[in-house]
Amino acid sequence: MKACREFLANDRFARVSGIELVDCRPGYAKTQVELTEQHLNGAGTAHGGLLFTLADFAFAAAVNAYGRLTLSISNSISYFARCGHGVLTAEAKEIARSEKLITCDINIADDQGNLLANFKGTAFITGKELPRSASEIHSREADHS
Amino acid sequence: MKACREFLANDRFARVSGIELVDCRPGYAKTQVELTEQHLNGAGTAHGGLLFTLADFAFAAAVNAYGRLTLSISNSISYFARCGHGVLTAEAKEIARSEKLITCDINIADDQGNLLANFKGTAFITGKELPRSASEIHSREADHS
Amino acid sequence: MKACREFLANDRFARVSGIELVDCRPGYAKTQVELTEQHLNGAGTAHGGLLFTLADFAFAAAVNAYGRLTLSISNSISYFARCGHGVLTAEAKEIARSEKLITCDINIADDQGNLLANFKGTAFITGKELPRSASEIHSREADHS
Amino acid sequence: MKACREFLANDRFARVSGIELVDCRPGYAKTQVELTEQHLNGAGTAHGGLLFTLADFAFAAAVNAYGRLTLSISNSISYFARCGHGVLTAEAKEIARSEKLITCDINIADDQGNLLANFKGTAFITGKELPRSASEIHSREADHS
Repeated sequence: MKACREFLANDRFARVSGIELVDCRPGYAKTQVELTEQHLNGAGTAHGGLLFTLADFAFAAAVNAYGRLTLSISNSISYFARCGHGVLTAEAKEIARSEKLITCDINIADDQGNLLANFKGTAFITGKELPRSASEIHSREADHS
Repeated sequence: MKACREFLANDRFARVSGIELVDCRPGYAKTQVELTEQHLNGAGTAHGGLLFTLADFAFAAAVNAYGRLTLSISNSISYFARCGHGVLTAEAKEIARSEKLITCDINIADDQGNLLANFKGTAFITGKELPRSASEIHSREADHS
Repeated sequence: MKACREFLANDRFARVSGIELVDCRPGYAKTQVELTEQHLNGAGTAHGGLLFTLADFAFAAAVNAYGRLTLSISNSISYFARCGHGVLTAEAKEIARSEKLITCDINIADDQGNLLANFKGTAFITGKELPRSASEIHSREADHS
Repeated sequence: MKACREFLANDRFARVSGIELVDCRPGYAKTQVELTEQHLNGAGTAHGGLLFTLADFAFAAAVNAYGRLTLSISNSISYFARCGHGVLTAEAKEIARSEKLITCDINIADDQGNLLANFKGTAFITGKELPRSASEIHSREADHS
């Protein structure tokens, strides 16, 4: 888990977006963000891109916690309700895993527990070790192949 | 288009993420972002949440350019290649529209024109005017209903 | 529920595919199919189109059981395991509903309870009554608009 | 292509559904179906499961035409218009391919060329030869792993 913690701590887009990892183990993770002005869309509610990033970071944590570099293949997100303030939580749960593929279901809720969106993601398990730093990655080949 | 430009300019998450709207008309939009350190994931490449937000902002521009508040229902994104530097572009094209629903296909490419990801989004046309400011929205009811 | 039962009984593609509705109430439905030679793909396992149709019929039942004509907007399906014999079951559960939209999560399992696939569907609630017969429908306009 | 033709000819669910393969090469395929009573849903229009199966068979043809057993991971379908008679066509075009993954975009249209639905599919390239017959497959292990 130490390599995974380092890997996730190096997620700069999640960090500048104010997203925190609050729980993480193989096949499970929880992330949170406290909404501020910078997270809003033109309609004054939490941006779809923020909800997606919150869920995507939980997804990355849950699948990389097994210790092998695991890359997202495809995701879908559906929106159910809008929210413009408070703390949002995404909870990722593994629903299936084979040797090469892993799928999680992720719910995104507001601080009253109302379901705002649902995210489903499938990722490819490369079998490679988690990179320790960005520079280490840049010298690698594409990881899908 | 003036109301739409104001509406989009008020998209704070896109703005703080460094995303720019470079073209916009009903059913079409193009957005760009120049990758910096803050956009990277733990693997040192552009974060899935950034690619999603880039495409989602192009989607929002293309569908709201008709002048009526149009809200995303569900989106899917698939990743094909990874990229850690340069300017990324998302181009949204409408593929279908009825009175209530609109669907766009959005390609995300690097500055060599390589396809990095594809985003497909469906949105609900509320029929309401575009809000001028966030405060105006907060006083409204939920717009799906 | 009587109008809904008639409506679902009139689903000819589900019927010729050997799919049965075994439970149905607003927001919930269960369908089953016993695999035969006619359901297989070139690889000798249950066809993706059959798994989709099994789930889609459960989805249609769960959302139309509210009594208003409700039409599918978009669906996604992910495959986890393959199976070539026995009875397959799809169970649809509503996860969100507003005045105009409804979303269900549907699991497809084999007769040992192994998860074969997951289907997520979003539909549009037209507000119109359920049609009694095909001829009645043919005289109507498109229902999305 | 001979092994692929045999493989596709062995797709029994497509065959009993009346679906024909009219064109097929690596990364491209076209399928057609002439609508009859058996293809309709309770609303008297082409069943979502039929549209999905039509597109899925074109998808399978386009990706297996490379000569290696390639299995669907996840698909999404969006519906734009309804149709209850005539010949429907699905056209699959590859949009991305790596060593292990392949993605196609598939449009489904009526005989006037109206877009009825769009299907996007991602599949896993196993590297194994295409099976010649169902019996050959049943003796194999699961192919994802």
